[in-house]
Amino acid sequence: MGRFADDSAVTQVDDDHFGATLVDGYAVIGGALHGGYLMTVASRAMALAVDRPDPVTVTAHFLRPPTVGDAEVRTEVVRPGGRHATVAARLLQDGVECVRLIGTYADLSTASGVTDQRREPPQRRAADELADPVALADAAPEGSFPIPDLFRSLQLRSDPRTWGWALGQPDGTGTMQSWCRLHDDEPLDSHGLLFLADVLPPAMFNLGGPLGWVPTVELTVHVRRRPPAGWVDAEFRTASVTDGYGEEDGELWSEDGHLLALSRQSALAPRQS
Amino acid sequence: MGRFADDSAVTQVDDDHFGATLVDGYAVIGGALHGGYLMTVASRAMALAVDRPDPVTVTAHFLRPPTVGDAEVRTEVVRPGGRHATVAARLLQDGVECVRLIGTYADLSTASGVTDQRREPPQRRAADELADPVALADAAPEGSFPIPDLFRSLQLRSDPRTWGWALGQPDGTGTMQSWCRLHDDEPLDSHGLLFLADVLPPAMFNLGGPLGWVPTVELTVHVRRRPPAGWVDAEFRTASVTDGYGEEDGELWSEDGHLLALSRQSALAPRQS
Repeated sequence: MGRFADDSAVTQVDDDHFGATLVDGYAVIGGALHGGYLMTVASRAMALAVDRPDPVTVTAHFLRPPTVGDAEVRTEVVRPGGRHATVAARLLQDGVECVRLIGTYADLSTASGVTDQRREPPQRRAADELADPVALADAAPEGSFPIPDLFRSLQLRSDPRTWGWALGQPDGTGTMQSWCRLHDDEPLDSHGLLFLADVLPPAMFNLGGPLGWVPTVELTVHVRRRPPAGWVDAEFRTASVTDGYGEEDGELWSEDGHLLALSRQSALAPRQS
Repeated sequence: MGRFADDSAVTQVDDDHFGATLVDGYAVIGGALHGGYLMTVASRAMALAVDRPDPVTVTAHFLRPPTVGDAEVRTEVVRPGGRHATVAARLLQDGVECVRLIGTYADLSTASGVTDQRREPPQRRAADELADPVALADAAPEGSFPIPDLFRSLQLRSDPRTWGWALGQPDGTGTMQSWCRLHDDEPLDSHGLLFLADVLPPAMFNLGGPLGWVPTVELTVHVRRRPPAGWVDAEFRTASVTDGYGEEDGELWSEDGHLLALSRQSALAPRQS
């Protein structure tokens, strides 16, 4: 495991064919590779396929979890476009499709138009004043606070109450929040925001229902800005679960109060035991 | 123009090939056919292709607007699946792709699992106490309140303040709301919710910025329940526009207070003149 940019890199084989190596270090509890990591890998290929640097909106349907090792991304340019280009992609391993994606790409650095921000930037304590959940887990009685490999692939800082669910004390809000950044101040690009858009444990865990595997059916991310250096505030909320189907809405904010991305996923709630 | 079910029907030609006739009556201002109508047409084909009746989550990228007349939907089963099946689709006219979709389908009538509703059902006055915007428009000075054909394809009841933007008086909230139902008490199915998820004018018009064409880049709808008979409350909000990119988040509720669907679209704000 190295720098995130290397771990999520793709190599162009042909116009519509890219190679990737899925590496250790991005597994969630249970061992499956993290959906946001897979989405970042695929998005890098999609951007190359249409020669546009940034995802404006990208959707992934998760079909089956790949394992660590070689994978490939096959792209199909749906509309080459002018300002916006649309591209579909399949992430495959051993010829089996694991993730299907569609996205529209552009160059966000040249975007101009109306800005009207009605969402409140989060009022969080500075990252340095908050707790490192990995350190909390390492200090907890063995096995009481299982930490997936994934959480060692980046730095997290959050209110310890966010993580009470892991010790049997969900806060009841249906929210999950943390400051996030890559190790060693590695810069994050717009594709890396797809990784952060699914990086925390399910917000559903703080509703107070049963814990368990929460499969993501689909994740859509709207990217608004390339992230500046520093911490990114990641906030997620599940506000409605119906017959086992829940959404998780996310907002990613820069330290200086700019909205970087919105995300929404459709996920399956754990079954009542 | 007839019943919505007929207007949005598809005819199966082959396993992965469906015919449709796009009819008059679903045009927005400017004459383009309405995205939610196109999504309903495609979704009917997608459900047939995987033999699952309901969209759980479906995403459409709008490439170019088709016109009234014959169209076809080409489907690709991505994962036949068990409880969930995933399918991609292309809506084409004269061989040219107009909409690309991907969706995961299931039978929502047999869904069971946790229900935990934290969203507040809207507190609206009963539909019968509210105004018909089509009647308001017909009574307004000619041309001051242009009504697209689309709004004559269903019944709408809302607070007149919702429509003040059309007379130069946006309410400044970035929201748009109306009760909706089909004419003659025609029942709405889960595919019809995709139509309602994009049926009102852009919520952006009530932010108070410039009016103009608001192209939808991508629309994703999560369906939670098949709609019961009666009115459906449709509420939309744009809470952040960044460099010309805005989201529109929607909730569809039944009269008896059940969440039927969540929607989110990525749309382009009108340019400052």
